[in-house]
Amino acid sequence: MESINASIITIGDELLIGQVIDTNSAFIAQALNKIGVTVMNRIAVGDDATAIAAALDAAALKNNIVIITGGLGPTADDITKPLLNTYFGGKMVVHAPSLAHITHIFEQIHKRPMIDRNRKQAEVPDVCEVLFNEKGTAPGMLFKKNGVFFFSLPGVPHEMKWLTETQVVPIIQKNFVAHFIGHRTLLTAGIGESFLAELIAPFEQALPPSIKLAYLPKFGMVRLRLTASNKEEKALNQILDSQFESLKIAVAEYLVTDQDEPMEVVVGNLLKAKNHTVATAESCTGGYIGHLLSKHAGSSQFYTGGVISYDNRIKTEFLDVSPTILQTVGAVSQEAVEQMALAVRSKMGTDYAISVSGIMGPSGQTNEKPLGMVWIGVANKEKVVSKVFYLRFDRARNIEVTATQAINLLRLLIINKI
Amino acid sequence: MESINASIITIGDELLIGQVIDTNSAFIAQALNKIGVTVMNRIAVGDDATAIAAALDAAALKNNIVIITGGLGPTADDITKPLLNTYFGGKMVVHAPSLAHITHIFEQIHKRPMIDRNRKQAEVPDVCEVLFNEKGTAPGMLFKKNGVFFFSLPGVPHEMKWLTETQVVPIIQKNFVAHFIGHRTLLTAGIGESFLAELIAPFEQALPPSIKLAYLPKFGMVRLRLTASNKEEKALNQILDSQFESLKIAVAEYLVTDQDEPMEVVVGNLLKAKNHTVATAESCTGGYIGHLLSKHAGSSQFYTGGVISYDNRIKTEFLDVSPTILQTVGAVSQEAVEQMALAVRSKMGTDYAISVSGIMGPSGQTNEKPLGMVWIGVANKEKVVSKVFYLRFDRARNIEVTATQAINLLRLLIINKI
Repeated sequence: MESINASIITIGDELLIGQVIDTNSAFIAQALNKIGVTVMNRIAVGDDATAIAAALDAAALKNNIVIITGGLGPTADDITKPLLNTYFGGKMVVHAPSLAHITHIFEQIHKRPMIDRNRKQAEVPDVCEVLFNEKGTAPGMLFKKNGVFFFSLPGVPHEMKWLTETQVVPIIQKNFVAHFIGHRTLLTAGIGESFLAELIAPFEQALPPSIKLAYLPKFGMVRLRLTASNKEEKALNQILDSQFESLKIAVAEYLVTDQDEPMEVVVGNLLKAKNHTVATAESCTGGYIGHLLSKHAGSSQFYTGGVISYDNRIKTEFLDVSPTILQTVGAVSQEAVEQMALAVRSKMGTDYAISVSGIMGPSGQTNEKPLGMVWIGVANKEKVVSKVFYLRFDRARNIEVTATQAINLLRLLIINKI
Repeated sequence: MESINASIITIGDELLIGQVIDTNSAFIAQALNKIGVTVMNRIAVGDDATAIAAALDAAALKNNIVIITGGLGPTADDITKPLLNTYFGGKMVVHAPSLAHITHIFEQIHKRPMIDRNRKQAEVPDVCEVLFNEKGTAPGMLFKKNGVFFFSLPGVPHEMKWLTETQVVPIIQKNFVAHFIGHRTLLTAGIGESFLAELIAPFEQALPPSIKLAYLPKFGMVRLRLTASNKEEKALNQILDSQFESLKIAVAEYLVTDQDEPMEVVVGNLLKAKNHTVATAESCTGGYIGHLLSKHAGSSQFYTGGVISYDNRIKTEFLDVSPTILQTVGAVSQEAVEQMALAVRSKMGTDYAISVSGIMGPSGQTNEKPLGMVWIGVANKEKVVSKVFYLRFDRARNIEVTATQAINLLRLLIINKI
């Protein structure tokens, strides 16, 4: 069976000058991948008619499906719609259901009179099928040419996501008989990429050529992914499951989870399973650990709250870190983070606590305490455990790594590994 | 003067299945743009020799510069280096300075014996110039063919950034005489994209065709960007500055900043200028406002700390929200956020405070309080002001919009607009 191939084209000058980060492509790639469509490449082009047309030409040559996002807004720099109209040889007509929807949004929700510019968003090329956009004012569009399906979606992430899930995916499933693509992903912690590769070298060498193994290092941890494709879903799952079991055994000592999920979800699930709760005391991460713990739905079951003790005064007044500790060993110390963890756990009445204090950069180091030095503490009712890390990244990455390592340390405490 | 064009190729299956979000491209695009290089497109391809070679062929046809990132790691799925070796017709040789550096990293920093797999990272094609990678174990490489410069960089973000800034940019500046590209960006708040377009229609119509205007809506606010290029830097700045002044006057009522900087930096600068401080009391954002305020260097000058009162008990025990308020009007109410702001300001002894409480989804709504309903409060020593928002996004975006709108409300309080 032939593979069904797709290309994703994102449109916008802001992508080429680096002003925004493209998260839409990753979402679309995931959605296509799930239904067995192979994404061959992703291309970002500017708001430029020639470049967009060239990208469409190139994408149509080798793919069954082309997904285009961006450039459908109400302003003059949004050229995608007129360009697609010309490219596919149509003329612009008003789409009545979209016009009714846009009118509703402005008059009932925004409570503002609609202007001509908004009304124009309901116009579409007469050669497309309209993908009704319940979430916004720019309709999605589907063009077909020589058997290739071209989907045009707005660039606003939540509108693009809704259209992809409710319209694009069902249309592709109906029109293309795809083969099946499967992945199995696990997360390891506590071992570097090259040592992990040595550890699983026998597994990797014995892997059939039809299965790909990928190493995805991030935040000082390494994710491993197996990928295969097959025309039979059952055969695909059998071969993947069997290899994945061998891989899990090979990495057992370092295995965090055999799901493709972030560290904080692993820990959230551990806590929820036992009806346990956690509180946070953050200095250098400034609330980022709280954000990670609370960003997923259902987090109120285990995350009670926290104190962001960014200023040392807050460490003393809210977390009982003694001025003596701050004056002698300082805020970035084992004594300080252990006291912070104990205090926040006790005051918030939780089963567990996490605390961090460190020097994220670009300044703040001393002779004894280099940039990137961070103490992490975790506590339960029996004990408090702390560990020092020396990170060597920039401020943004130091914050991310600290937060992930702190949540991992809590995981080790929960499962009695420390 | 001809424009100097570049293409960015990112390599990795994880980009095509949507497992990771590509932030490298945006960084490289920004760096190139600053020195007058036009990024024509960005292409993501998988760990596949045919696809990578095809992308290299296509990129070389139309560009002076090709930047390749990813696929240089120590594991078998990292095929970029052998592929480039074949593509440019070289043979692999050991690069002595890189070997010494890698040996140092393993033996002195990681304190682990080096294995053969690590040693191989010091091998490079003999047809490239090595870009010494002080930050990691994979050397950068520069290949030249028919006047086109091909830079190969590791995909690890902090290594890629360091190599781009210290090696790639200087080499391009030395070898290509580029024209100058300039941008001017401002941020507006309180007006929708289409109404903003109406407001500045006279300005937009009078804009010379050589200057492009872009609308970049995000988090319920709209950024406007002017872009132009010119062979003379001085002429470029003159024409851009003059048009930018007109644009600023046209949007004066809604102008937040005339710099390309996020809302929290605007507010941080306002606070620093007066030596003022702020504290946060977050429920539904779970620490994200604290993270935004503290993620930039220098934030300890104005951010004192906060309480994450995720559980209602913490609102009562740490922020004095009365149980009566929680039982009658509830945690998502004007009364609750005003009390939270007053309490955190008073207890942390700051000049200002921000508080939020809302329903981020996907569940938690009631008959009176829909999903996306959020109360935001801000306080200084004279008063407390609160505002309700009804957001209609998913959980992740509701958290981001809430945080940005809360920081904007603080801005309006600081500048006496509320």
